[in-house]
Amino acid sequence: MGFDLDKKNTMQKIIRCDKSKKGFIDKEILDLVNFINSLNDYYTTSSCSGRILLLKQSESNKKHETTWIFSSHKFIKYEDLKKSLDDLPEELVFFRMEAPILHICCRTTEDAVRLLKSANSAGFRRAGIISLSKKITVEIFSTERIDVPVSCKKRLIVTKEYFEFLIKIANQKLKNSRKRIKRFKLLLEQYCH
Amino acid sequence: MGFDLDKKNTMQKIIRCDKSKKGFIDKEILDLVNFINSLNDYYTTSSCSGRILLLKQSESNKKHETTWIFSSHKFIKYEDLKKSLDDLPEELVFFRMEAPILHICCRTTEDAVRLLKSANSAGFRRAGIISLSKKITVEIFSTERIDVPVSCKKRLIVTKEYFEFLIKIANQKLKNSRKRIKRFKLLLEQYCH
Repeated sequence: MGFDLDKKNTMQKIIRCDKSKKGFIDKEILDLVNFINSLNDYYTTSSCSGRILLLKQSESNKKHETTWIFSSHKFIKYEDLKKSLDDLPEELVFFRMEAPILHICCRTTEDAVRLLKSANSAGFRRAGIISLSKKITVEIFSTERIDVPVSCKKRLIVTKEYFEFLIKIANQKLKNSRKRIKRFKLLLEQYCH
Repeated sequence: MGFDLDKKNTMQKIIRCDKSKKGFIDKEILDLVNFINSLNDYYTTSSCSGRILLLKQSESNKKHETTWIFSSHKFIKYEDLKKSLDDLPEELVFFRMEAPILHICCRTTEDAVRLLKSANSAGFRRAGIISLSKKITVEIFSTERIDVPVSCKKRLIVTKEYFEFLIKIANQKLKNSRKRIKRFKLLLEQYCH
């Protein structure tokens, strides 16, 4: 199947839902995703604008064995989390801030290289071509992150004050991520249009 | 300059020191690095076997403005850190566990794709071709990480007990990283020899 047919099929699916767990594209990254999909030589297959999570981690640390207790793509307050802390599990729970992530299919390797350069210039330090065989796919990611164990054996192991401090840092990192998404769109408008 | 000459020049530099900040290759990843460099179509340009850090982070979060207060590629105990906690800075200090990272130059894109597949099979979830123009370079990285704010304005904001708990988790993640490095070498022996 050629690039154009793949793109058409993917775009039809995106109208219904994208590949991500939650089933729709975040508002905060929608402008960038729409712009990329308007270009002739690119289309997105998944995207996340960055998020704040509480997640229960299994011993094995395998992705499919990880359960979200709380998830937000928006800035949060302690009160937003509070309900999720009422019924904590036996397993270790992490408070996490994750950077934005994008998967983008490219028509040619030259298009992929151009995309990588714009991503790096926008501050996405982990950007690479993850597939070259059937499809040329670029993964774009940055290193911004918090990953803090907050509960174990059904009990909180940090104070409310520390939690509030974590939230402040996570919100700041999320804010920086938003700026990076906007910068990336501006750079793409210059170099990939 | 061709691949073979680039490799020869890089290997001569590696004998003196590799590109990393500390100036030598960690013992824990040396077997893998030596094996990769023994292959005809690959050579490493930088490597880290994973580490536990205390780092002072600037407001801007730029890499060159980040200072290490403590760094270890080995499993640690609270006592190893203690001295570093005596004179804390004004800035935010993070306790961090970082996963292994490798940069590997490949002769052809087919060699790069083969390497990516082995890296993914070994559990390195973030592996991609980061350069295709002058040199074909693959970056290999995994998602294992802890990133916890531990001090602010010269004062610790977590207890000794919590620190000991963090160290236990960080050591476990470092142990998993070591296993991943070994698994990757085994897979390369099968598929890239």
